[in-house]
Amino acid sequence: MIAPARDVKRAHNFNAGPAALPLPVLERIREELLDYRGSGMSVMEMSHRSPEFEAINNAAEQNLRKLLAIPEEYAVLFAQGGGSLQFSMVPMNLALAGKPVDVLHTGAWTAKAIAELKKGTLHHIAASTEAEKFTRVPRAAEIQLSPDASYTYYCTNNTIEGTQYHEVPYTTAPLVVDMSSDIASRPIDVSKFGLIFAGAQKNLGPSGVTVVIVRKDLAERADKSLPTTLQYRTYIKEKSLYNTPPTFAVYILGLVTEWMESQGGLTGMQKRNEAKAKQLYDTIDGSNGFYRCPVEKSSRSLMNVVFRIARGDETAEKEFAKGAAAANLVGTQGHRSVGGMRISLYNAVGQDSVEALVSFMREFQQKRG
Amino acid sequence: MIAPARDVKRAHNFNAGPAALPLPVLERIREELLDYRGSGMSVMEMSHRSPEFEAINNAAEQNLRKLLAIPEEYAVLFAQGGGSLQFSMVPMNLALAGKPVDVLHTGAWTAKAIAELKKGTLHHIAASTEAEKFTRVPRAAEIQLSPDASYTYYCTNNTIEGTQYHEVPYTTAPLVVDMSSDIASRPIDVSKFGLIFAGAQKNLGPSGVTVVIVRKDLAERADKSLPTTLQYRTYIKEKSLYNTPPTFAVYILGLVTEWMESQGGLTGMQKRNEAKAKQLYDTIDGSNGFYRCPVEKSSRSLMNVVFRIARGDETAEKEFAKGAAAANLVGTQGHRSVGGMRISLYNAVGQDSVEALVSFMREFQQKRG
Repeated sequence: MIAPARDVKRAHNFNAGPAALPLPVLERIREELLDYRGSGMSVMEMSHRSPEFEAINNAAEQNLRKLLAIPEEYAVLFAQGGGSLQFSMVPMNLALAGKPVDVLHTGAWTAKAIAELKKGTLHHIAASTEAEKFTRVPRAAEIQLSPDASYTYYCTNNTIEGTQYHEVPYTTAPLVVDMSSDIASRPIDVSKFGLIFAGAQKNLGPSGVTVVIVRKDLAERADKSLPTTLQYRTYIKEKSLYNTPPTFAVYILGLVTEWMESQGGLTGMQKRNEAKAKQLYDTIDGSNGFYRCPVEKSSRSLMNVVFRIARGDETAEKEFAKGAAAANLVGTQGHRSVGGMRISLYNAVGQDSVEALVSFMREFQQKRG
Repeated sequence: MIAPARDVKRAHNFNAGPAALPLPVLERIREELLDYRGSGMSVMEMSHRSPEFEAINNAAEQNLRKLLAIPEEYAVLFAQGGGSLQFSMVPMNLALAGKPVDVLHTGAWTAKAIAELKKGTLHHIAASTEAEKFTRVPRAAEIQLSPDASYTYYCTNNTIEGTQYHEVPYTTAPLVVDMSSDIASRPIDVSKFGLIFAGAQKNLGPSGVTVVIVRKDLAERADKSLPTTLQYRTYIKEKSLYNTPPTFAVYILGLVTEWMESQGGLTGMQKRNEAKAKQLYDTIDGSNGFYRCPVEKSSRSLMNVVFRIARGDETAEKEFAKGAAAANLVGTQGHRSVGGMRISLYNAVGQDSVEALVSFMREFQQKRG
């Protein structure tokens, strides 16, 4: 027998990605797992060329188009390989000979993108906040653009450093962004971007599918002798069905975007996300320095809240993570490269989880502070 | 309420991939969907760096190692992008300057691999059965190897043409094979191969994860300036966890391989598969020419049985597919490029499904023959 959801003990899940999914989505997946709407099959068992799956694929695309208000001249692609493959695919497809890629460097994820550019793509660090230990994103006045850039690249939200752009920087070249960790968390103006990519595993679904939103004319820059599955134009031409897509992940992305729509779309998501982040940052800022967020206020992320405990006391931080886990609060440890704590508050994390967390934080402070 | 499996009407699923999964595996996925073994999370919601997921990842690898008796000097990798990306990744990583890639050409899938080689890798068609319309695989005497090949490439089972190698061809260069559609369907001697790749969506699990089994020394051929996620050595070094893997697909692969083990391992699979294919080929061969398999007997595939009806009468073939679907027999149409019928009999397809199919075939012949 399958336990109904109310009997299942679910964790408060603050994982940085893969991350929490909406419970109604998981319940729907479960309901349809042996028999998708009378087909006698799981979605996993369907041909990707069947009318049933084509409808699933189209619905996922249309949901995203509606949620993000994606203009007609943009294609929406479902690829594989995550952001890490995009670090290579973007320059392969969009870099122009002799024209540098401008990069705004804000931490571990842009560092990985730069490492791939260093393998043979002309590029220019147009801004970096490394001297500030990445505790903020660059200010407009600090950005030194090349006059002839192929494109300008940045990461909208930095999961490890806990920073986020709250405005789109001004550029003349097409903007290419890694939006893996804050896509669909708030309304955006897609027309400001040339290309947006995002691994699905934070706000959109499970890992294994990567969303690419690209202005169709830019996809035509690519050399046709590139490997077929590494050209955006292949996905455009074949509606992401050139080869077998990660069908189950696309199906779940369709369910998650449907759920977002039912919750007020991206305006609804933004409201929820602002409320959750406010409660947590208020708790940190009101702790008399026991908890301390190193990020400059104007750059604080609504998705990943990082903080240190008792001036970076690693013993206290370990104790916190352990105690939190015992209290059913999962995924509170910071990234292994920076230490401290990190709380990810993606769309599917509920206010109830944040409430449980802040009351644990208060108790922990009383005991330890 | 979730209906118990016995109340769910499941189709007889002959899809060519994505394809049928074992019912006990689907039931287990369903059982664990909201709460994986007391974690309070779905596997989809877990960090890929968590001990829980690392255990899942290791189990999937260990199950495969045991099932296929993979020697120590081989790495087992979980990649993304399917066979289609491997058509590019293999030459990127294994082709040596000035040394051709030898290819045995047997149909649509090797044609796709050749198309990627044509983009700049020296290669040589060492054998081709195109003149025979790909109705068999090459005979040993027909294969003309280069004296200095980087590697020799072939596709062990051709899903569209319905052919399969029943012996490993003799070569001196390392053998690289696309085993997407017959991996784990029978015991093999891994030590005969340099590299084996397979999309999971036929015999191993859902789409979205690609298994690569590679002799570790061969992975060292690759230029280190290749994109990081396109180098096999990255997956070897990081145990397929360099970046976020398709966690849910890896989990399911672990369950499917566990199921195979419980069914007698690859010897058990081979027995089942031989019995299923025999029943179907016997029905075709015993139909007085009403059904006709164009494939030469020695090359017939146990995985994908192709046949024509009434000398390729397309009206009759459409009627067959339609009638079969109405009788709960799904996925009987041939590939759109060749027409006719195709019945895929991967590991998870039961003998009961073949019985239902052959009795439908007999009835159809009585009505139409």
